[in-house]
Amino acid sequence: MKRYCYGVDIGGTGIKVGLFDVEGNMLDKWVIATRKTDNGKDVLKDAADFLLEKSKEKGLTKEEILGVGVGIPGPVKDNGDVLELANLGLGYFNLEEEMSAMTGYKVKAANDANVAALGEQWKGKGKGYENMVLVTLGTGVGGGVIHNGKIVAGSGGAGGEIGHFPVNFNEEESCGCGKRGCLEQYASATGIVRLAKQALKRDSKGSLLSQEEDITSKLVFDYAKKGDELALEIVDEACRYLGIALAGVAQVVDPEAFVIGGGVSKAGDILTSHISKHYKPNVMKALRDREFLIASLGNDAGIYGCARLILTSNHQISES
Amino acid sequence: MKRYCYGVDIGGTGIKVGLFDVEGNMLDKWVIATRKTDNGKDVLKDAADFLLEKSKEKGLTKEEILGVGVGIPGPVKDNGDVLELANLGLGYFNLEEEMSAMTGYKVKAANDANVAALGEQWKGKGKGYENMVLVTLGTGVGGGVIHNGKIVAGSGGAGGEIGHFPVNFNEEESCGCGKRGCLEQYASATGIVRLAKQALKRDSKGSLLSQEEDITSKLVFDYAKKGDELALEIVDEACRYLGIALAGVAQVVDPEAFVIGGGVSKAGDILTSHISKHYKPNVMKALRDREFLIASLGNDAGIYGCARLILTSNHQISES
Repeated sequence: MKRYCYGVDIGGTGIKVGLFDVEGNMLDKWVIATRKTDNGKDVLKDAADFLLEKSKEKGLTKEEILGVGVGIPGPVKDNGDVLELANLGLGYFNLEEEMSAMTGYKVKAANDANVAALGEQWKGKGKGYENMVLVTLGTGVGGGVIHNGKIVAGSGGAGGEIGHFPVNFNEEESCGCGKRGCLEQYASATGIVRLAKQALKRDSKGSLLSQEEDITSKLVFDYAKKGDELALEIVDEACRYLGIALAGVAQVVDPEAFVIGGGVSKAGDILTSHISKHYKPNVMKALRDREFLIASLGNDAGIYGCARLILTSNHQISES
Repeated sequence: MKRYCYGVDIGGTGIKVGLFDVEGNMLDKWVIATRKTDNGKDVLKDAADFLLEKSKEKGLTKEEILGVGVGIPGPVKDNGDVLELANLGLGYFNLEEEMSAMTGYKVKAANDANVAALGEQWKGKGKGYENMVLVTLGTGVGGGVIHNGKIVAGSGGAGGEIGHFPVNFNEEESCGCGKRGCLEQYASATGIVRLAKQALKRDSKGSLLSQEEDITSKLVFDYAKKGDELALEIVDEACRYLGIALAGVAQVVDPEAFVIGGGVSKAGDILTSHISKHYKPNVMKALRDREFLIASLGNDAGIYGCARLILTSNHQISES
């Protein structure tokens, strides 16, 4: 009997679902909309119904499905407890138990950034590194820590919340989280635009950026690559905060590699080289040679990591 | 047959040895001198010979000894590889294999600060917290991260090296490690004295500290407790750096509790309350209620943790 598992990555706008074999090959992939009505109370049910429907379509029996890995945009404890799913308006519940009851499948849940880290470590740029850290630079900054091949979820599921790592103790503006000086305020796509606007206001230095009506982080990197002085300064500033934060992360968990993902990571080498430049002087000598890599799985990192939640423990019994 | 294990904590001046039963009760304790001649090449042999001698004295057979846990002042990888033992002048070797060959016992090795963390988590103030962080404030600053009851050693054994966590990006003086702005420069006993001398030089504010010939970190805390304004400012400054660093640590590994050990921790509540004050504004809301506790095992934390390295996996088979 062949065995399979599902990876389900629940986001604020869409639910991504992947079907995997036990070797971790993705056999099929779907996206359904996240129903936000009634505070998102139907999200789990929608996902569960979708899985049952797909299993029926494909003629997969309950025995053939080893389990379902689920990633959600909020903290998840190792036992599946979800303290709060603010994006979807959900309070405390045990996701694994609830979704297992809906589907009859074994369910394992984790935070979305953490499963993305696990995905990159398993099948992406983190492959071969049992100890790695993923940092995703998108609208916000997310992160996940993998130690000896496993997610470091921490006591309340907030492990790897690198976006709110404190990096500036003189910041006057507030982060979305309420505190001030979080990495996200400088290194997210939004943060980079914020830095750019501040820089242009101080002194545009004849930068071509000043002629753009709608500044994006992509534009900042594009101009920086062309040698625009101000754009390079903005990139360097964002990467200084990233370097400082990742130096702190390294002193705590000593990873072999940092993998940078999210939309901003499309900038490529200019990003990793500037992060590395600011990382090195801020870590112990023994930690200086760590790798900085650009993630390779894109938006699929999450469903790969979800599958890995299931296949970590069960892939030995893949065929019987 | 009753079973036992040894905990061996190798320090720069002394080797501490404890004999434990499988419940983790310490039955006996010894200290021998660390022989530093010939770059410390005899240190392991001295420890091994001592264990064999004690086993003989007590009539303990090889079968009765479940193993030996060893803590050393340097990075140790999960497989027992020691990259460099600078304090003892030793280069690369596999401690577990070497000491096992000398004694015939199973040997498990880890970094000294990490075993101290494990000890406090198992039998000290960290008891009941599966996820905790120990910070030791002594001549230097050490640390250890425990996640789900196990040491986070990281890829090269530098996990938990919180003493060199970057906290000040404008520092002009160098840390012993070569970089600038490490936590150790502000929160170790030496660092606190450094802050005190700087403060007195700026403006002594009529502080009684200015009348002391030999300022120590203990004196700073003693005067602070009596309400000396300058001493309180120094304590607050040291604790600000600690609060910032531990906020960063929390964003990475989300522990339930921080346990503060080392000589400086004898200051007690004044220390934890000031650290907590600076920690809270620098972490996400979800991490704000973490505990700050003073360590309770003192210098024995290490040997307890060493014993735990062995008893983690074997105490099920305690009696047969």
